[in-house]
Amino acid sequence: MGYQKPPGTQDILPGKSALWQHVENKARDLGRRYRYQEIRTPIFEATDLFNRGVGETTDIVEKEMYTFMDRGDRSMTLRPEGTAGTVRAYVENKLYGEPDISKLYYIGPMFRYERAQAGRYRQFHQFGIEAIGSTDPALDAEVIALGYAFYSELGLTGVTVDLNSVGTPAVRDAFREKLLAFLLPMKDSLCKDCQSRMERNPLRVLDCKVDQAKFEGAPSILDSLDEECENHFSRVKAILDEMEVPYQINPRLVRGLDYYTHTAFEYKAQGIGAIDTIGGGGRYNGLVSQIGGEDQPGVGLGLGLERTILLLESQGVNPELGGDLDVYLVALGERAEQATPGILHRLRSAGIIAERDYMGRKTKAQFKAADRQRAKFSAVLGDDELERGEIALKHMASGEQRAVPLSGLAEAIQTYLPTEEKGTINNDA
Amino acid sequence: MGYQKPPGTQDILPGKSALWQHVENKARDLGRRYRYQEIRTPIFEATDLFNRGVGETTDIVEKEMYTFMDRGDRSMTLRPEGTAGTVRAYVENKLYGEPDISKLYYIGPMFRYERAQAGRYRQFHQFGIEAIGSTDPALDAEVIALGYAFYSELGLTGVTVDLNSVGTPAVRDAFREKLLAFLLPMKDSLCKDCQSRMERNPLRVLDCKVDQAKFEGAPSILDSLDEECENHFSRVKAILDEMEVPYQINPRLVRGLDYYTHTAFEYKAQGIGAIDTIGGGGRYNGLVSQIGGEDQPGVGLGLGLERTILLLESQGVNPELGGDLDVYLVALGERAEQATPGILHRLRSAGIIAERDYMGRKTKAQFKAADRQRAKFSAVLGDDELERGEIALKHMASGEQRAVPLSGLAEAIQTYLPTEEKGTINNDA
Repeated sequence: MGYQKPPGTQDILPGKSALWQHVENKARDLGRRYRYQEIRTPIFEATDLFNRGVGETTDIVEKEMYTFMDRGDRSMTLRPEGTAGTVRAYVENKLYGEPDISKLYYIGPMFRYERAQAGRYRQFHQFGIEAIGSTDPALDAEVIALGYAFYSELGLTGVTVDLNSVGTPAVRDAFREKLLAFLLPMKDSLCKDCQSRMERNPLRVLDCKVDQAKFEGAPSILDSLDEECENHFSRVKAILDEMEVPYQINPRLVRGLDYYTHTAFEYKAQGIGAIDTIGGGGRYNGLVSQIGGEDQPGVGLGLGLERTILLLESQGVNPELGGDLDVYLVALGERAEQATPGILHRLRSAGIIAERDYMGRKTKAQFKAADRQRAKFSAVLGDDELERGEIALKHMASGEQRAVPLSGLAEAIQTYLPTEEKGTINNDA
Repeated sequence: MGYQKPPGTQDILPGKSALWQHVENKARDLGRRYRYQEIRTPIFEATDLFNRGVGETTDIVEKEMYTFMDRGDRSMTLRPEGTAGTVRAYVENKLYGEPDISKLYYIGPMFRYERAQAGRYRQFHQFGIEAIGSTDPALDAEVIALGYAFYSELGLTGVTVDLNSVGTPAVRDAFREKLLAFLLPMKDSLCKDCQSRMERNPLRVLDCKVDQAKFEGAPSILDSLDEECENHFSRVKAILDEMEVPYQINPRLVRGLDYYTHTAFEYKAQGIGAIDTIGGGGRYNGLVSQIGGEDQPGVGLGLGLERTILLLESQGVNPELGGDLDVYLVALGERAEQATPGILHRLRSAGIIAERDYMGRKTKAQFKAADRQRAKFSAVLGDDELERGEIALKHMASGEQRAVPLSGLAEAIQTYLPTEEKGTINNDA
């Protein structure tokens, strides 16, 4: 027999999961400092929300959604991205009625049935933020800066920001005409995907990796911006300069989602196979009303956590992950063995990271396990010590050993440390 | 229009999400101290894994699974519980090859299409632990103690532990005969569910809420235990006594899953409607081989997070959740307004929780926002101050105010605090 995980998914195992926690803690820390609060929406939503919220002409909706009928005969879809559900929750829960704008973040799984490749999974995870309720260009810059801080504070280098303005729908309509005039003569020479995109969403043709070279003389959307778009974009750039967030203008940048207006941006980095985009986002002023709410502007981003983890690994970043074992209890003799579970429990209740053997292993093997698990201390209980109400506490690094009363074991572990290690034992349980 | 969340799911909004984080942090803290490491398995698995791993005669598999065909025509199911996927990952990733036993925990969403009621959702969340690789009864006790510590360290009171031994399959087969002899004469008087359970899994009849009174003289499985079962159960009880974890023996306790052997337990509490079980678990010595792995014993638990949150609320437990705003920046005048985003960014980069207005509001409204968001400080920047490179920092609680150099604002906020507040500002970014 033997079951396997579904194709395109992964198990995150002990050893790796601590790095995931580290990355998520950074996301939460940034959320806290930048005043974004967590929102958690369901893993699946009504399919029509994504048809409408993500855009019916996108690859996601056309080819990649996990859609199913529930037992009540409603069409549901595993969320392929985080913005549509967040905006749905914003509208349904009337968050627009709050006195301040909504600054929200989420961390969680998303699902797209894509072709598998390095750094791309069918269940993947994003850290996303959404700021809904203001057109202030400072908010666009704040969102971009937060994403940049996420990567740089994690210790990644070489992450760049591509920036563009995709204008308003009116600006895009005018630009589309210009662009089609440029593209139509070369239509037959373009790749299949581009030919199909020309009909559905010609702006995305410029994003094509295959045909990039052919677009040398293509018109730039930045030459088509109206005054409002121009002003917004200038201010975003000025604030990013002020924040010392580096970026490069990329007039061909269009995100794979239909809802962006004004600012669009992507974070890129080398080192994870063919993929170089590790996150991105933009402003979406029409989206809230499009999915049934008041007309509220918004701006947000989504950062891929799998890709962040892969980059950390490929750049050899080794953060301090904590959680090291404080003490390993070794029992010598049957009565000591019987007493161990209670002693262990009291240590853990006192906030100490403590472990013992569960395999009935011999003493020598228990000491080996203490070493293998890199315990700071071992505590050896023999029947004689038990009789005297004592236990032998050994500091593994220095080899120092002394007898301490059983009733004072937790305190001894918390205080009996070479000076330079003080404070590494957790006692805030 | 207006989209709604799927029936039986919920949005966890700002205000509530901090409490969820608090509960999850407690779970992770316990995992750390008790040496369980996180594992993350996919949200969906091959349907057959649950048919086999959860048990085909359970309500879950028969009536409650979210099952769908993926785009590759494989039958997939949103995980209805966490053990089957964890054990599948244990086997597939050959964790049994590690020198120590596997002590794993998970936190995440599960899915069952159940009738909605207070504390019961179709997408719900569990903190679960699984210890695989040892038959040591100390491990059963450790698992029970960890769950009990979860509730009590969160500040909940009145949580009780029901404990039973459901024996080995051989013991259960013998007991089933005795039980059927008792039940058959009253069959027609039992509820529909019981009649159907009598055929599929008569032990679960004793768990029925409707017919409880009729089972007064029913045989007890504890009278049918063999010596091995008896010894194991005695030792579990003795260790729980040693750990001072209170419990009561409930010989009718059978969990809703088929895979348990020996120890079965539930945590119960009043205060969330008709439901009184808030978590539970047990030993599952046959499960690993049943889903295709080496024959390894295991023991685990699953605790419902929605029910934990509801209990915290109904008991009025108000934990310190942190994340309070350090400083709200107020801009007076246009040049000051232009300078604010950069100042804000530098504060946040220095580890300070900082906010400003994004709505173009008047000064008075900005001060109101600082109050509403309970800022510890406000920092007021006028065009004159900007000229001098200064900003007016006001400690909100005391009303103390002074001018500080803009370049030293972060430091001033971190150090200029009434003594009793020292250390409440985060500076470890």
